[in-house]
Amino acid sequence: KQWTLNYQEAAIYLEEGRNNDKFYTHPQSHDALPAYQVAHNPWFYTLDLFAAVVVMLLAACEKPAVASLEMPVGIHGSIEMLCLLILSLDLGIRAKWLGWRVFIKHKRTVVKSFMILLMLTEAVVVLVRQANHFRVTRALRPLFLIHTHYCQGVRRITRQIMQSMPPILDMILLLLFFMLIFSILGFYLFSGIADFQSFSTIKDSFISLFVLLTTANYPDVMMPAYAVNKFYSLFFIVYLSLELYFLMNLLLAVVYDTFSNLEKAKVRSLFFHKREGCVHAFRLLVTQNNHTHLTVKHFIGMMEFFVPKKTRREYYLMFKFLNTSQTGLLSLDEFFNVYDVVQIKWKLKSDSNLWSSSFKHPCNRIFRGLHWFATWCYFDYCIYIVIFGNFLWILIETIRISNEAVSVANYNFTASWISIVFVCIYCLEAIIKILGRGPQDYFTKGWDVFDFLVTIVSVVGVFGEVFEDSFYYVMVLRPFRLLRLFKIKERYRDVLGTLFVLFAKLFSLAICIIIVFYFYAIVGMEVFFHYDLTDCCKNSSVEDYYAFKNGTVRTGYYYLNNFDNLFQSGVTLFELTVVNNWFITMEGFALTVSEWTRLFFMSFYIVMMVVMNIVVAFVLESFIFRINYRRQMHLDDIDDHHVVKEEIALNEDEVHMVSVLSAPVNGQFINSQDAREVQVYIGERTRSREDFSLRMYHDEVEQWMREFQEQRQEIVST
Amino acid sequence: KQWTLNYQEAAIYLEEGRNNDKFYTHPQSHDALPAYQVAHNPWFYTLDLFAAVVVMLLAACEKPAVASLEMPVGIHGSIEMLCLLILSLDLGIRAKWLGWRVFIKHKRTVVKSFMILLMLTEAVVVLVRQANHFRVTRALRPLFLIHTHYCQGVRRITRQIMQSMPPILDMILLLLFFMLIFSILGFYLFSGIADFQSFSTIKDSFISLFVLLTTANYPDVMMPAYAVNKFYSLFFIVYLSLELYFLMNLLLAVVYDTFSNLEKAKVRSLFFHKREGCVHAFRLLVTQNNHTHLTVKHFIGMMEFFVPKKTRREYYLMFKFLNTSQTGLLSLDEFFNVYDVVQIKWKLKSDSNLWSSSFKHPCNRIFRGLHWFATWCYFDYCIYIVIFGNFLWILIETIRISNEAVSVANYNFTASWISIVFVCIYCLEAIIKILGRGPQDYFTKGWDVFDFLVTIVSVVGVFGEVFEDSFYYVMVLRPFRLLRLFKIKERYRDVLGTLFVLFAKLFSLAICIIIVFYFYAIVGMEVFFHYDLTDCCKNSSVEDYYAFKNGTVRTGYYYLNNFDNLFQSGVTLFELTVVNNWFITMEGFALTVSEWTRLFFMSFYIVMMVVMNIVVAFVLESFIFRINYRRQMHLDDIDDHHVVKEEIALNEDEVHMVSVLSAPVNGQFINSQDAREVQVYIGERTRSREDFSLRMYHDEVEQWMREFQEQRQEIVST
Ligand code: NA
Ligand code: NA
Repeated sequence: KQWTLNYQEAAIYLEEGRNNDKFYTHPQSHDALPAYQVAHNPWFYTLDLFAAVVVMLLAACEKPAVASLEMPVGIHGSIEMLCLLILSLDLGIRAKWLGWRVFIKHKRTVVKSFMILLMLTEAVVVLVRQANHFRVTRALRPLFLIHTHYCQGVRRITRQIMQSMPPILDMILLLLFFMLIFSILGFYLFSGIADFQSFSTIKDSFISLFVLLTTANYPDVMMPAYAVNKFYSLFFIVYLSLELYFLMNLLLAVVYDTFSNLEKAKVRSLFFHKREGCVHAFRLLVTQNNHTHLTVKHFIGMMEFFVPKKTRREYYLMFKFLNTSQTGLLSLDEFFNVYDVVQIKWKLKSDSNLWSSSFKHPCNRIFRGLHWFATWCYFDYCIYIVIFGNFLWILIETIRISNEAVSVANYNFTASWISIVFVCIYCLEAIIKILGRGPQDYFTKGWDVFDFLVTIVSVVGVFGEVFEDSFYYVMVLRPFRLLRLFKIKERYRDVLGTLFVLFAKLFSLAICIIIVFYFYAIVGMEVFFHYDLTDCCKNSSVEDYYAFKNGTVRTGYYYLNNFDNLFQSGVTLFELTVVNNWFITMEGFALTVSEWTRLFFMSFYIVMMVVMNIVVAFVLESFIFRINYRRQMHLDDIDDHHVVKEEIALNEDEVHMVSVLSAPVNGQFINSQDAREVQVYIGERTRSREDFSLRMYHDEVEQWMREFQEQRQEIVST
Repeated sequence: KQWTLNYQEAAIYLEEGRNNDKFYTHPQSHDALPAYQVAHNPWFYTLDLFAAVVVMLLAACEKPAVASLEMPVGIHGSIEMLCLLILSLDLGIRAKWLGWRVFIKHKRTVVKSFMILLMLTEAVVVLVRQANHFRVTRALRPLFLIHTHYCQGVRRITRQIMQSMPPILDMILLLLFFMLIFSILGFYLFSGIADFQSFSTIKDSFISLFVLLTTANYPDVMMPAYAVNKFYSLFFIVYLSLELYFLMNLLLAVVYDTFSNLEKAKVRSLFFHKREGCVHAFRLLVTQNNHTHLTVKHFIGMMEFFVPKKTRREYYLMFKFLNTSQTGLLSLDEFFNVYDVVQIKWKLKSDSNLWSSSFKHPCNRIFRGLHWFATWCYFDYCIYIVIFGNFLWILIETIRISNEAVSVANYNFTASWISIVFVCIYCLEAIIKILGRGPQDYFTKGWDVFDFLVTIVSVVGVFGEVFEDSFYYVMVLRPFRLLRLFKIKERYRDVLGTLFVLFAKLFSLAICIIIVFYFYAIVGMEVFFHYDLTDCCKNSSVEDYYAFKNGTVRTGYYYLNNFDNLFQSGVTLFELTVVNNWFITMEGFALTVSEWTRLFFMSFYIVMMVVMNIVVAFVLESFIFRINYRRQMHLDDIDDHHVVKEEIALNEDEVHMVSVLSAPVNGQFINSQDAREVQVYIGERTRSREDFSLRMYHDEVEQWMREFQEQRQEIVST
């Protein structure tokens, strides 16, 4: 019974090491263990995430709401109340698990408590009044999302962005300093030119040069001065060369360097944190009479809590794989690899590679022929020729339709036999590969799944053409067949491979961008949704963009760039992120609402400029890391190191021991030299980015290890 | 006499090692040496550069010429002829020096010969006809500039750009592939929308998405579709996310990685080339009876040809510094450092640091007081307070003038006493620092020169205000005083330090950009100068930009973006480089001249996009190199390693030997342990980028050295 608690606590230490939870939040007593279990339950994680997402999405139902999603105040107020109560449930469980003293010290928890209190109060006020008021605090709802367990990557990136801020702010200050100098200079140079508003006051001068930094008003802002004197172009050329081409590139360099160093520091920090978790767990699992080695019994006991629902054989394979010294007892150095070993998936090694070898005769010979044909290199070349032929045919037919100048929507498409033949070839290829290589081999490879999806899309497209003559939306599916060409070049595989590797982190980065958008969308809706910019801004430079003249060609439609609801706000903010013509949107609101609204647009530009620089730095760093890793390890493709394969054999005694549950488990059979190997297992594990980093920086890691060694001597001796 | 020829040839080998000239162009016989001397004479280099620059600048005098610089055909034709003859002089000398067989093999020389032949022929035709014809071959004139000796950096960057091309072209193809897929998709989706020209044909669709890649037509291109269905915004968001934010960043990563690796390969290549030059030179300087060591006599003999106009003492100091083993004879390993040692500037070490210590009493005490005051840290703080006060005052006064809404040109500026007081404080500060620290110490530090220039500009500004009331151009000089604030922050010093370090290479990069501009300017002038876009493009989307309505506010002035002469072409191309609204210029020429002119503008965008990515990669790489070097060497500032200081002492016998020219020079006094040191010399040398690189990659350099060692064993034994 006492050991069960030790197993449980050791597993918690390993969990905290993996999740990078500070150890001071470790359950202080055994009474707190049930609360810890609840707080770290996947169901609870999901409920917490669900509540946070629903609270954020309520912005689409609250005023100003999306037309089709509008709800009465009572309903969206009640839903908000319910979600906030679910979110506060997390706080109650944390209070029980941590105790009040640690609860107060945990900064993120205190912020969440305060936020829930504030928003519950506001939700009650909204329900009582049955009306929405000015609720800019809604902009802070993403804090609940950041707090959830599944947003660990988002928290990490947010923290890294905060830590990157000092040098970035220095560079932004430098940009603004030179902008001010050039503003004064431009005011003195150009304010005398007639009909030239851009530099008529110091404020206009600064705003024009701020927009010029984004290139959005160039060369328009220069042309009146250029018309007066050709040499005035030098002012703009020097300003752009300095601010845009030198300082903005230096800002990217500063962001890249700061971000890369934080990434490396994080790798080191996580490396040691996991080891600390192992040390804490190890000390809970050793006995009084042997405090330097761990038995297989206690190892399996702890593992049943750390990675539940595995078989006894799998736990034994993990132990045997870790026990490189083959003593039957784990040392601490061997135990440090526990995080890697739990990720290995073991399966029995079989003699035949073909999935169809167990089929009855003569099917097995047919399938062996299909396997040879599916893996024949010229088969792929033939498929590439077919794909290229399909590409040419789609292009030629599109050009023909384009030249006919007929309306696509009313075009009576018919399914040509060429189209059907191409799609049949794609289907045949997929069938041959699935049957020849086996469904598991086919559906676990990214490129084959890509091909399969393109084939499915092609089949749907052809069926649409055959059965529904005027359903022209299926024509939209045609160009996706061309994506198969993307596979042919090796560099393009590398590009898509980078996309897959980056996906998890790019997803976290995208969540960060969504959070920034959400904050600004709520603020924008609260401030701007009363205003209609249709046909606004008469007698100004942006009049044409907002003009509403039904039927005219030159309508600018910019009145559609508004903050009427959450999703239109998102589109408007995306347009501001792309930057081009952002100042026309800003000018519209500045002229209609107030000059101070420029601060909203300028601050959004600065924030998104920093975030986009971090996106660039992150793509650069990840891509260059892949290339450097490949070069340093002398690889043809980083994917050759993507999967780690291990092999381990069990002898007859071991097979009996792990099969019969009544048999006692121990490590005495590990060092049986004379025993015959009966079963051989193959283990596979996917390397993480951290694995790659540790392999690449292995000389630095050895230095880290020496530092840790001295620190560990201290821990073990006390 | 025979030794003189060996000294000369050895110096040539060292020169070739430093200039990275291939050794197969080494003079094959002693008869070729005079031609080699002429071809490598600084006067000849200057004449060659002058001719190449004049030939390029003739484009401003030929039709279409700058109005004030127009020349008759006979004059600019004759000048072109003369310059081409000067350039062909280089070929004659090369033929004499290299011999015909090597001359034919040297690719760059053959290209230049062909170019001169072609252009001489054309110049003769122009002179005979007394008229300019379609002369697009003028666009190739920069090849003469690239060929000159002083454009070695430009050649290096051009070669690296060429070597970077394969992966860059792969990425550009990938961009265009996805652009084509989205073009077909956009055509099927949007061609049915009424009054929406952007996607009405496959060609319009591709052009719209090409311009959308540059963001220049966003959100305008989206708004008509967005007005029909809000979900059509997804097409544009997905396209921009993939092409602009993912693939363009990957393109930058590919450029950065390729460029950085070429940089590193170049460092290695130059490292070994210099060593090869040393080996060749060394073998010419050793004697039959001692072929492993070099005497001081032969060393000085060669040095008089390699770095002429130095004193005997300086040559001896070089030898003694190189002779680390203190044997009096140089080994090959010691001789490898010859390139570094020739850059060291030696001066006698003095006891006192103050320049004024030799002044008569009581002046020396006054100057010592000034020195203490000038180096007193609170003195700088007081100056910073004054600079900040001046900044605030300039800002406040500018805001006051701005609010008065008066015309700056007619404003009757008077010199306020505050302005005079500030400038007097600046002058006093400069005087105190010059007198306190010494003119040499003051004028050799970059930051002090910066301060001095700002002070000079301030003085000119104040004098202008005092003596010329309506000369308002001096007001333009006011904001430059604010530049002194730039010094205060340490990171900003690092930024400007990076600018200084980058300057040489940025200059070469700028020459590359100028060459690209020149090529496109000539082509643009030849194709477009007949066309006037004033009031063109009626009933098109760009009509307003070209409208010429005298006095109206909304005139776009885009007809000024033309190719009427060389400099206006340059401004137009700079606007296309900045990218924003480039498609309006393209649309104007496409509608007026021909749709095919879009190729000119699109190809210029692609070329400049690649070049600008290289600029970004170069700024990134240089900046990150500085930061990594500082971190790896544990420095506070890279400038701490910028100057290498060495110390070497001469004893009495050595001083006598280097002073009396009749005394024979030898190395026997180097190993005199008992001799008393009489003179101590301090040598200073500025580290190059290559020095920094070799220090930073020192473990790789050691591996290179081992490879070289094996190779050298082979050379020395044969
Ligand atoms: Na624009
Ligand atoms: Na733009």
